[in-house]
This record gives sequence, structure tokens and C-alpha cells, in this order.
Amino acid sequence: MISGTTKLIAHLGFPTHAFKAPLIYNPYFDKHGIDAVVVPMGCGAENYPDFLKLLFRLSNIHGALITMPHKITTMALLDEVSKSARVAGACNAVRLGADGRLIGDMFDGEGFVRGVLRRGREVRGRRAMMTGAGGVGSAIAASLAEAGLAELSLFDAHAPMMEGLADRLRRNYPDLSVITGSVDPSGYDIVVNATPLGMNESDPLPLDVARISTDAFVGEVVMKQEITPFLAAVRARGCEFQVGIDMLFEQIPAYLEFFDLPTTTADELRAVASI
Amino acid sequence: MISGTTKLIAHLGFPTHAFKAPLIYNPYFDKHGIDAVVVPMGCGAENYPDFLKLLFRLSNIHGALITMPHKITTMALLDEVSKSARVAGACNAVRLGADGRLIGDMFDGEGFVRGVLRRGREVRGRRAMMTGAGGVGSAIAASLAEAGLAELSLFDAHAPMMEGLADRLRRNYPDLSVITGSVDPSGYDIVVNATPLGMNESDPLPLDVARISTDAFVGEVVMKQEITPFLAAVRARGCEFQVGIDMLFEQIPAYLEFFDLPTTTADELRAVASI
Repeated sequence: MISGTTKLIAHLGFPTHAFKAPLIYNPYFDKHGIDAVVVPMGCGAENYPDFLKLLFRLSNIHGALITMPHKITTMALLDEVSKSARVAGACNAVRLGADGRLIGDMFDGEGFVRGVLRRGREVRGRRAMMTGAGGVGSAIAASLAEAGLAELSLFDAHAPMMEGLADRLRRNYPDLSVITGSVDPSGYDIVVNATPLGMNESDPLPLDVARISTDAFVGEVVMKQEITPFLAAVRARGCEFQVGIDMLFEQIPAYLEFFDLPTTTADELRAVASI
Repeated sequence: MISGTTKLIAHLGFPTHAFKAPLIYNPYFDKHGIDAVVVPMGCGAENYPDFLKLLFRLSNIHGALITMPHKITTMALLDEVSKSARVAGACNAVRLGADGRLIGDMFDGEGFVRGVLRRGREVRGRRAMMTGAGGVGSAIAASLAEAGLAELSLFDAHAPMMEGLADRLRRNYPDLSVITGSVDPSGYDIVVNATPLGMNESDPLPLDVARISTDAFVGEVVMKQEITPFLAAVRARGCEFQVGIDMLFEQIPAYLEFFDLPTTTADELRAVASI
């Protein structure tokens, strides 16, 4: 029940019609009597910097979930950002710190990593291969690095994007070995599709599934359908995998901790969600 | 259930903790499956003009309820305001018109008048006495005039405020006879306390209840308690009356019509409200 004491969490992006977060957070808040609400606000890029600033001057603002097209531009609008956000070059969460400071973090990658760990798979000391060095790929790479990954083989058809991410990783995680330019998954413990390939029916597979080790763990970021063509091939090969939407549910506990709200498990969120 | 398609109605004011509107509108929207939500936003005066402008550029914004301390300043920020708002000199509702135009109206007075009419009392051709020519008094005077009142005897200890309202009424409603300077209710059909007297325990009564005709209808704007000391005296005298909160419930159907949402009665709103 929204009242004048309810903590307001804005969900900022455009367009809003496919927003899923309100359908997950709000039933969870309701169930546990947590006096907070996630409210979609469809803000265009041209108004976003000014709107974000004023939004965080509201007396009942508690935080913001940031989504397309604002994840990158948000970085320049904050007083403090986490290392993960810096490496990702993007931010999907903002909260108010002391003295009105705006603090940002990035949980897309954290959601991915929590999903891997929750299945009993290791990240620390392991080797991963990822294709796609855009926003979500950068976030996943940053979180894998933060979790102690030993080696990342990174590919993106857009070389400057690939090399830019590799540089940021090397600067921030000197212990991580970063290799670029190969899309061959053979021998890697973790294999990730972080490209949008799979959004359209005519898309090719993002990499050669036949070369993935059968004991590798495979991740997918495309959420258009639960089992994308890539995951169908991965399943046929017998690999363990997580679907795109897992990353969404797994990152919510991290958001709740960031917002200093009572947290829970991805499983409970899945159970209460209205999606 | 809030989603990315939900029509956002901002409730703008400061502070927010005593806001009642979300506790009335949202249960009503829920009950009827109306895809809209009222969300409190505690905006300070210094940020309000910029925030209002940007808020109405959100893709999912539908309207705003305006409360203290913004009702007067809103007037200068809109493209179009109703006659009632102009006479009241204040605005408590904003919606988006064609081409992004901001349209304002004022329903505090409309709520008062609807309450009078719903009890089978007449306004057209009748005579009213009102003390208090501030924001809410101005709104009630404007709506009584709009409803065809014949004569208004207006009092306010602050003479420029009293004369200012009298002037606005005479300019906009030339058929209404406006008298100023007397706080004597004798012989009037409708008697209204539109002063804040009654907010504090030590307040004197706003006028001499013993001089109200026993067949007059009496209205109160103070909402701090249902039966204020003034209304207790009015009840003891045997007059019919409406309490402050009636004005709140009675104006919501007018707001719903303004926002082009399915409307209802004050009674249904009272039944579903969580206050």
C-alpha cells in the first residue's frame, strides 16, 4: 500500500512498456510489508540528466533502477561509482548517499555470477570465454573478474569495443589474464553469449556450440525467449546452462542489499513475481 | 499491479508523510482494474518548477495532484487553467493536453459544492457566508459562484486577501453579489469556515455559531479531526453540516473525470479507502 512514507524507487528508462522489475519487486515488497515501491518512469535521453538530478532531491526518493538507454550516460551524473560499474562503463542502480551524494553500481554482471555460483559452479581461478563486449558483456566481465576469474577470452566483432573492455579489465584487475580476438570456446570452464544474437529468428548462433566442452557451464543474456536457439544447441550438447532471465532474478538480491532493504533469494522472487 | 503501461499520477507536495490521496485512489484503481497509480513525490519549492516540467515529459505520466506548498506557484507554470483555478488563484490538478500543453484545474471548491448538492441542498440562487479567503476559501468561493450562488458575504481578518478574492469573484462572476467585512452568519443559507481555526486546541471558534440559522447548511475545511470544536457547536445548534474530509472525498470524482479515468461516487471511495 503506497503512502506518504513509502520509499520511492524509480525505474528509469524508455520505453517502459516491457519493464519487468515492478512485477517482481512490488509483489515481494507487498508480501513482506516492506514500505517501498518501484515506479516506472519513461524518461527520454534529452531530459534524463536534469530529471535524475531533481528526482534525487525528492524527500521520499530511495533509489533508482536504471535501464536502457541510460545505463552509460548515468556514469557521468554520479558522485561515486563502484569498480564494477567503472569497468562495465555503465550503471544500473543509483542510491542516495550521505550529504545528497549519488552513488552508482552495476548488477547485471553480479546477477550472472550469482547464478553461476548458486549452481555450485566455481568462478575463482577458472577460465571463461565470452562473446559480446557491449554493456551487458562488460558488466559480466567485470563481475567475473571481481569474483576471481583467472582468464577471460573475449570476442567482439567490433574490435574497438573489445579492446576497450580488455583494457579496462587489465587496468582494474591486473591478476586477470585477458585474451582477445578468438571466438573459440574449446577448453573453457564458462562460456557466455553476451551478444544480442538470438533476438531475431534469422540470427546465426553466436559461437560454435560443437566446440564447447561438455562439462562447461554456459550463460546466455538474450531474454526474448527462455530457451534461445543457442541454449537449445547447448542443451542438446549436454552442457549445464542458465537462461537470460536468471540474470534478472539473481541480481535483485544484490540490488536489495545496495538499497539497504530486506533481501531474499532469487527463488522467492521468482515465486512471487507476476511475470 | 504497477507495470510499464501503468498511468502515473504524481502526488506533488512537501512533506508527504500525511498524504491521504494514495490511500484512496490506489485501492479504488485496484478494485476496478484501472491501470493507474498515485505516487507521492516530496518536492521542495526550490526544485518544483523544473521538476514539474520534466515530470510531464515522462512517457507514462498521466497527471498530477498538487498540494501544499505548490498550489499557488503551479498557476504560473501551466499553459491553460480553468476559470475556477483563476479565481481561486491556485491549482490542485494538472494533466497533459494536446501537444504537450499543461492544463490545470482546482477541485477543492468543487468537492465542497458536490458535498452540498449531494445532501439535497441548493446552491443556485442561494446566499452564503464564508470566513477565510486563503487558498481553500478562494477555491470554495469560485465553485459556489460557478454553481450559481446569488450572494456571498466574505470575511477575512487579512483585508487585502479578502478584497482581492472579492475582486476576482466580481470580475469573473458579474451576477454574484459579493459583500465583504462582516463575519455575521445570520440569515445565510450556507455558512463556511475556510480559516485554519480549529487546527490548534487553543483556537477560538471562527464565527458566532449562535447566530447561524438552524436551517443553514454548514461546511468546515479543517480536517485535523472529524468533528472540530466549530462543528461540535454547529451540531449542538442542530444545523446540518459536512466535515472537512468530505471535501476530499467529494472532489475525487471530479479529479477522475478531469483525468479521463472511470469515475465513481464519494461513497464508494470512502468504502475502499485505507484511511
